Amino acid sequence: MYIQLIPLNAKVQNMRAERIFSNARLATMDPALPGLGVVENGMVAEAGGHILYAGPSRTMDTVEMIDCEGRWITPGLIDCHTHLIYAGDRAAEFESRLNGASYEEIARAGGGILGTMKATREASAATLRTEAQKRMAALIAEGVTTIEVKSGYGLSPESEYKCLEVAKSLSGVADISPTFLGAHGFPPELSRADYLRLLCTEMIPHVAAHNLADAVDGFCEGISFSPEEMSQVFAAATRHGLKVKLHADQLSNLHGAELAARFDALSADHLEYTSEDAAAAMAKSGTVAVLLPGAFFTLRETKLPPVAAFRKYNVPMAVSTDLNPGTSPLFSLLLAMNMAATQFRLTVEECLLGVTRHAAVALGRERVGVLKAGAKCHLAIWNIERPAELVYRIGFNPLHQRIWSAV
Amino acid sequence: MYIQLIPLNAKVQNMRAERIFSNARLATMDPALPGLGVVENGMVAEAGGHILYAGPSRTMDTVEMIDCEGRWITPGLIDCHTHLIYAGDRAAEFESRLNGASYEEIARAGGGILGTMKATREASAATLRTEAQKRMAALIAEGVTTIEVKSGYGLSPESEYKCLEVAKSLSGVADISPTFLGAHGFPPELSRADYLRLLCTEMIPHVAAHNLADAVDGFCEGISFSPEEMSQVFAAATRHGLKVKLHADQLSNLHGAELAARFDALSADHLEYTSEDAAAAMAKSGTVAVLLPGAFFTLRETKLPPVAAFRKYNVPMAVSTDLNPGTSPLFSLLLAMNMAATQFRLTVEECLLGVTRHAAVALGRERVGVLKAGAKCHLAIWNIERPAELVYRIGFNPLHQRIWSAV
Ligand SMILES: [Zn+2]
Ligand SMILES: [Zn+2]
Repeated sequence: MYIQLIPLNAKVQNMRAERIFSNARLATMDPALPGLGVVENGMVAEAGGHILYAGPSRTMDTVEMIDCEGRWITPGLIDCHTHLIYAGDRAAEFESRLNGASYEEIARAGGGILGTMKATREASAATLRTEAQKRMAALIAEGVTTIEVKSGYGLSPESEYKCLEVAKSLSGVADISPTFLGAHGFPPELSRADYLRLLCTEMIPHVAAHNLADAVDGFCEGISFSPEEMSQVFAAATRHGLKVKLHADQLSNLHGAELAARFDALSADHLEYTSEDAAAAMAKSGTVAVLLPGAFFTLRETKLPPVAAFRKYNVPMAVSTDLNPGTSPLFSLLLAMNMAATQFRLTVEECLLGVTRHAAVALGRERVGVLKAGAKCHLAIWNIERPAELVYRIGFNPLHQRIWSAV
Repeated sequence: MYIQLIPLNAKVQNMRAERIFSNARLATMDPALPGLGVVENGMVAEAGGHILYAGPSRTMDTVEMIDCEGRWITPGLIDCHTHLIYAGDRAAEFESRLNGASYEEIARAGGGILGTMKATREASAATLRTEAQKRMAALIAEGVTTIEVKSGYGLSPESEYKCLEVAKSLSGVADISPTFLGAHGFPPELSRADYLRLLCTEMIPHVAAHNLADAVDGFCEGISFSPEEMSQVFAAATRHGLKVKLHADQLSNLHGAELAARFDALSADHLEYTSEDAAAAMAKSGTVAVLLPGAFFTLRETKLPPVAAFRKYNVPMAVSTDLNPGTSPLFSLLLAMNMAATQFRLTVEECLLGVTRHAAVALGRERVGVLKAGAKCHLAIWNIERPAELVYRIGFNPLHQRIWSAV
């Protein structure tokens, strides 16, 4: 039974629930409430895959009543930055590097990003899908219900479209937000100018026309796209009605965050070298700061993102795995939160908002990441005594149950 | 059916297996073979809970044949340093610290190690056991079959004995090696001298007489036991026939590793501040260097343990979770390996030997941590293409099956 979609925040009277999750403690993430929007003696009522009511326990007619026995409920978690689709892994390269091999030796042996590109181009959609499903299963096991999935290891029209189709095909067990990351790097077979032209005049229009992605992403760094090249890509995306986001200021300050803000980007991601001025610009453009502590850890970075500036200007911060085969083979969003707290000193509240409400904003999605009337009924029910436990433990999964509603 | 225990390395002829794990790739960790002791086309034959044969595939009579479909088999993993038994957790303290509370404020609010001590003293054995079992379940899910478990949050005779009894009671799903860590810190109700006397003249003799622990451990640091106090504890342990091990040189160089070596310790653990000379002494005494990257990570340490010196003097290195509620709430031995590789630059081979053969040496146990005739049939069977994948991925568990044999 499907109900008519009710507006977010609607007052729901006299409606009949299909399921009520009762006797629960809620971290609603409702922006109308302070902090995590905690409701100590709460319940969530669902009908037609949407939340009818989330708040203090009350009487309500329902088909099914589920006793949560005092457990905590959060919105289903959102991983807003992943490179879930690729072929091959880089375990051998990881091993070689620990054995002292240089990046050059690894590249000569067919490793690095070009190795992943080659394997991804050669892999069938079915193979890519099977491998991605295994990775997705690890995220899902921790209560993740919405996953952003980037292309970017094909770097040719057909292989990029293939990856975006695979991304779409992953829905059915989670909400998928596909992102076109053709501007991840330059393919070896074309000049920079030719690939840039291909991106702007053929690939982006095709992605937009066929509705293959929600947004266009790029990697703006000395070793990849320059700010000038990136702004051409963003201009093309904007012309075709696609939102943008950016891998910005990870290894150096090329003013990627400012560039992202100029194009009203959904998010700017990494941001270790971002300046305080850029944080102010992001606040104005409503661009979310997506922090990726797994890459920081794996690359043994020391330059911290400007968390104090993000706080000062009220830039919403999200936290994500950056799941990828090279710089962040991280398959746990809970662990990403712990790493963000430990390495970047994010508070527990910032971490939890960063994988729920703020991650939703980073994806431009309204009906996820929050427990309130009108939102999708995506829930994570936890065997914990306080929300801090989701951040505090390292490599421990206290999920009791995950509810994902196919709406 | 139990067979007579065969000596390690025995040549097994004409014996009948109960189970054969065939069509497998083995990382035997056999010291007679180089590196991980890899056998590409291998099998493991078991009878009476012990390994009859591990090596290249051959014909052998068996009751049951299990096709491993090319998967990798390692010895069941060994976590050789855990504080698995405690009451309460420190999630609230973790949260406060991120919110800016000082250690002093936390201590005044009843947190810190004394908070854990108080909760552990008050908790019943049944409660302690239930909580420990949940933590153990996380380790077991990753193929861990042998777990060292320390006391040390009781700091009174009855509460320390209670914790050691609980440790013993955890066997039945894994091999448990209990360690008496009465010298973890000083209880508030006694003077240092009185507690030291209690430890040496009452608690250690009791632990030895009642066979409550395999070894005696201590925390030698400015904030805990001095080297002089520690050597009195070790002398008492030695007099009562107990092996020793030590939390050494974690936050400063008090020459704890030398002290451990002087008492022929099984292991010295942490070792961030250990000198090259101490590494030489450890090599002579056969003391294993147990590296604990979870605590290094959580405390955001920067001083690295002297891995080059351990290599130079052939000190075997082990890797462990240090699972504890304060400085290392880490519940994943796979993740401990990744952290050891990423932070300490251990090679894949060192990490894997560190959770198998070398961890066994750190516990003074011969029949675990290796796949060869006479060893216990504790296996971890993995869905991987190469052993490096066990170290490379962060927060991903590729375990296919765990075999633990109650012998
Ligand atoms: Zn990325
Ligand atoms: Zn310890």
